[in-house]
Amino acid sequence: MINTIIRERLEKLRRRMESLGIDYYLIPTADYHNSEYVAPYFQTRHYFCGFSGSNGTLVVGMEEAGLWTDGRYFIQAEKELAGTGVDLYREMEEGVPTVSEWLADRMDENGRLGFDGGCLNVRQVRNLKKKLAHKKVCFVSQYDPAEEIWTDRPALPSHPAYVLGEEYSGESTGSKLTRLREKMSQAGAQVYVESKLDNLMWLFNLRGADVECTPVALAFGLVTMERQILFIQDSEVTGKVRAYADSVGLELQPYESVTAFLENPGLYREAAAAGGAVEADNARTDCRVLFDPGNLSIRLWKAVTRGREAAGIKAGTHYDIEKRSPVEDFKAAKNETELKNIRAAYRDDSAAVCRFLYWLHRHVENGTVDSLTEYTAAQKMDSLRTEIKDFVDLSFGTISAYGPNAAMMHYSAKKDDCARLRPQGMLLVDCGGQYLRGTTDVTRTMALGPVTENMRRHYTLTAVGNLQLMDAVFLYGCTGRNVDILARQPLWSTFVDYKCGTGHGIGYLLGVHEGPQNIRWRFAEGMAEAVLETGMIVSDEPGVYIEGEYGIRIETILEVVEAAKNGDGRFLRFSPLTLVPLDRALIDPAFLTPQTRGVLNSYHARVYAEIAPLLNEEERRWLRTQTDPI
Amino acid sequence: MINTIIRERLEKLRRRMESLGIDYYLIPTADYHNSEYVAPYFQTRHYFCGFSGSNGTLVVGMEEAGLWTDGRYFIQAEKELAGTGVDLYREMEEGVPTVSEWLADRMDENGRLGFDGGCLNVRQVRNLKKKLAHKKVCFVSQYDPAEEIWTDRPALPSHPAYVLGEEYSGESTGSKLTRLREKMSQAGAQVYVESKLDNLMWLFNLRGADVECTPVALAFGLVTMERQILFIQDSEVTGKVRAYADSVGLELQPYESVTAFLENPGLYREAAAAGGAVEADNARTDCRVLFDPGNLSIRLWKAVTRGREAAGIKAGTHYDIEKRSPVEDFKAAKNETELKNIRAAYRDDSAAVCRFLYWLHRHVENGTVDSLTEYTAAQKMDSLRTEIKDFVDLSFGTISAYGPNAAMMHYSAKKDDCARLRPQGMLLVDCGGQYLRGTTDVTRTMALGPVTENMRRHYTLTAVGNLQLMDAVFLYGCTGRNVDILARQPLWSTFVDYKCGTGHGIGYLLGVHEGPQNIRWRFAEGMAEAVLETGMIVSDEPGVYIEGEYGIRIETILEVVEAAKNGDGRFLRFSPLTLVPLDRALIDPAFLTPQTRGVLNSYHARVYAEIAPLLNEEERRWLRTQTDPI
Repeated sequence: MINTIIRERLEKLRRRMESLGIDYYLIPTADYHNSEYVAPYFQTRHYFCGFSGSNGTLVVGMEEAGLWTDGRYFIQAEKELAGTGVDLYREMEEGVPTVSEWLADRMDENGRLGFDGGCLNVRQVRNLKKKLAHKKVCFVSQYDPAEEIWTDRPALPSHPAYVLGEEYSGESTGSKLTRLREKMSQAGAQVYVESKLDNLMWLFNLRGADVECTPVALAFGLVTMERQILFIQDSEVTGKVRAYADSVGLELQPYESVTAFLENPGLYREAAAAGGAVEADNARTDCRVLFDPGNLSIRLWKAVTRGREAAGIKAGTHYDIEKRSPVEDFKAAKNETELKNIRAAYRDDSAAVCRFLYWLHRHVENGTVDSLTEYTAAQKMDSLRTEIKDFVDLSFGTISAYGPNAAMMHYSAKKDDCARLRPQGMLLVDCGGQYLRGTTDVTRTMALGPVTENMRRHYTLTAVGNLQLMDAVFLYGCTGRNVDILARQPLWSTFVDYKCGTGHGIGYLLGVHEGPQNIRWRFAEGMAEAVLETGMIVSDEPGVYIEGEYGIRIETILEVVEAAKNGDGRFLRFSPLTLVPLDRALIDPAFLTPQTRGVLNSYHARVYAEIAPLLNEEERRWLRTQTDPI
Repeated sequence: MINTIIRERLEKLRRRMESLGIDYYLIPTADYHNSEYVAPYFQTRHYFCGFSGSNGTLVVGMEEAGLWTDGRYFIQAEKELAGTGVDLYREMEEGVPTVSEWLADRMDENGRLGFDGGCLNVRQVRNLKKKLAHKKVCFVSQYDPAEEIWTDRPALPSHPAYVLGEEYSGESTGSKLTRLREKMSQAGAQVYVESKLDNLMWLFNLRGADVECTPVALAFGLVTMERQILFIQDSEVTGKVRAYADSVGLELQPYESVTAFLENPGLYREAAAAGGAVEADNARTDCRVLFDPGNLSIRLWKAVTRGREAAGIKAGTHYDIEKRSPVEDFKAAKNETELKNIRAAYRDDSAAVCRFLYWLHRHVENGTVDSLTEYTAAQKMDSLRTEIKDFVDLSFGTISAYGPNAAMMHYSAKKDDCARLRPQGMLLVDCGGQYLRGTTDVTRTMALGPVTENMRRHYTLTAVGNLQLMDAVFLYGCTGRNVDILARQPLWSTFVDYKCGTGHGIGYLLGVHEGPQNIRWRFAEGMAEAVLETGMIVSDEPGVYIEGEYGIRIETILEVVEAAKNGDGRFLRFSPLTLVPLDRALIDPAFLTPQTRGVLNSYHARVYAEIAPLLNEEERRWLRTQTDPI
């Protein structure tokens, strides 16, 4: 079964590459903002290979092509790439080359590598350059094949932006800018360039609707000691946004003008003077730019470099302050207002999930499970969520995966292409919402009838890992790397692993995946790692994925809170935000340790205490049975 | 109580500093080889401040002086520094400045910092330079105050070296050199300079007796593609060593000549030619030197730089291959011969410790505990160890610490200054031996009579941590950072921490502390971290230290072994080398989890099975009761 559509697209690309003298063309999953989820306009990689997952890099050569993706997508990618002639490379598996190793192996000396310079960040380009240095590879970064080949390419998204009030954000943009400028001063920078959408939305207390499930507006940003500028499409600026911008001194410039703006030498002369005036200690004759090389595109960085050179200001790596954006760290540790809102949002969201579970339970009891499909189950869940106060959007497309489909970590059921539920085995539902009061994410796996011994054993071991991490106490200074093994240990002890991180941060009415904190046992080059701070939010989601058989994931969102302070140090712990019971039908007490039994019972007691008041009588009765001590 | 002796020594140093125009003088704990334990000749820091611990940095200014040490020594240092006028700085505690922060805070612009360039490594000097750059501090690295002020300074040690046969080392020096040269080629280096004693001993299959408890000979080493040279005192070279050196092509040069040798331009011209001839791919007109900037002294590095400059070869950072020595990694993963020997040595060593515990037990039963002191108990342990086959030396001074003394992690009981044992509370004994069949290390804490509830609770939580780590299963790729929390979690859950790493590597008839692997939850700058490989050996030693009350440590040495390989990856686990029972009188079953109870019982079963045959009838009966299932 040849996939002729994809093959034709690749053929067109190769003909164009030939005429441009490009030997290999690299297409990441990226927009101009290093977003994790990208608008349809930017789904060039999907267009050229057919793989629809949220993470993947396509490299096309004249004879062969490869797609790199992570463990969440191995099963799905294999399915979607079938017949396209594109080979799947499983990232971080033993013996699998990285993209740069693969290219280094294949490219001739003085070969030419093409990519869209707006979609690769500075660090990625530097790494490629280093790895391909011995082949003296030449980079062609101005060509975007989607422009001509992808004839029905969707338009650049453009939806009205809106202001997030301080009753939600908890801090004015003025206060945030003051904190940012302090960090700029400490780092000796006079200019801060930002292209990451969630950082910009957070900093300016704005939101948008340009990326599905992620309430951001396409934008770039620039902050000096005196000015703050947002580059945003005119069509997105409502009267309210303009009035707000005026009131907080935020300059609005057209989205398209950012490159020209950054190339303007006047900007750096002015910023250097302003920076010197504000902070006498940091007075310099040069103008240092703070940016995150892991986010800023090579295109914008080149514009900055050209601008400074034109200004007669020394430029180059030595004059940049390259580091993670201070905004990234500010944003990750939620403030008291945000936390109050988030806790309330999670209660409401958890109640909706409980209602869904009860609805499913009724179908199981009434023997009508097979009237449902993965898709209709997801629809039910989504409709319950949309009823919640302050609902804005889903935080990602609901994953409703039955049986073997759940072994694909990010499976997506389609109306006309999905499994019918049956009164046996397990259904995995991973879903979340965007609310004015925060962003949620939760996964529960439920029995729909009889299950095998292995399913119960694996569910219980997953639950033990989930509960062990939830129960962790750790010294301040720990990162997610230190605690990851608490979630994996029950599975590792039986020689089972899940091929992904254990947990990710979550934004506030922003990305459902947010850094810099995360919970992983190892880090690929350039991956963010951060000390766990109070107010940070992380997911706790171990799982078991048996290809062709079943998938299990239990995801509970945790808040980092203070535990104790004494002569031995400052101890932190987690407090669960998600309040949805685990499925007792899937718990085999033989594999449940007494410690985790205790943690489970007190978690369930808390679930009942906080969620029962939000349910109706029959839902409440059901929740009672689900949360009784085991 | 003023310590006049120390104050007078510091006064002499300050007068000398004044005449040399030195504002601050820094004395690390170091010899010319970055050894952890240093010969008496190098104990300058101890001489000038009175602190006798194995790790500490003294900085002397005109008005004040500070001593930095780690958590193992906080209590001891406080005691020993009393009355000296030297302030204690507790490393890694919140709010405590590092040496360089402290200096940066105090030093004037263009100030002068003195140190002995033979005793600070390249990385340390660079870090100091970076941290003090804004003060434009000038470094004076040629002055060693011990030379003139320490009038009764011990002589440089000089004891006969000896050859370690292949029945012990398991690999010829020729084979080791071949592996080393492969790594040099891969790194593009033509010269390898080594000053770390255990690396040199391992590489050339030699041992010595220049450092107490560490069977090494003072030496420097140099390897090119054609030559291998050892710089060693003539007085240490026996006829056997000379004959062996001849037979393996090892050139011997005088220890004192190393600097002059490295300054000789001919060396680099010759090495460049040889390197080019051997590996055509790496033929270069320059001569690259592989060295570990964390080990090589700034004095030797300067000699290398001078030598290459004189040879007209480009020099400087760009032309060095700075990385951890390949020997460090080779040495850490023991070969099959070494492992066979080590396992046997640990069995014999464990039997001696069991005999000691039985002897102690008889004293408890007979009510004669108070006839013993910490010192006589240590003597008993040491005498049992010296009887073991192939015994060479202790691997460190036996720690025998009763009651509150055990709260000092590295307490040292002296014959005339030690505690008498009493029939209550706990005795901690940490000890080990050097054998031709390997190096051992073990700690057990025993009840001598009634103990408090807290002691039992803390002992049990320590045991649970010890057993959880021993029982760990982990994917290949994990470092000690990933698994550390398994040992700490029971203590952290009750807001208790021990202020040190959980585990260290151990040499083969070499250092009792050896890298690059270790088990820690956080890493100071420059600390080694390495993936756990099969054949590596690490200690597992959680503890509880309550100042003024008691100390608990349980240390079991573990070997890294294969566990399973399947589609989810390659799993490793630990296998205990130390086979000595824990003290059941100190275990409170209320705090023992069923999992760890199982691990404990199977560990005890193995202890009995392997050690009982090495004991006499009454010792065996006692071991039976100690290892019965709990």
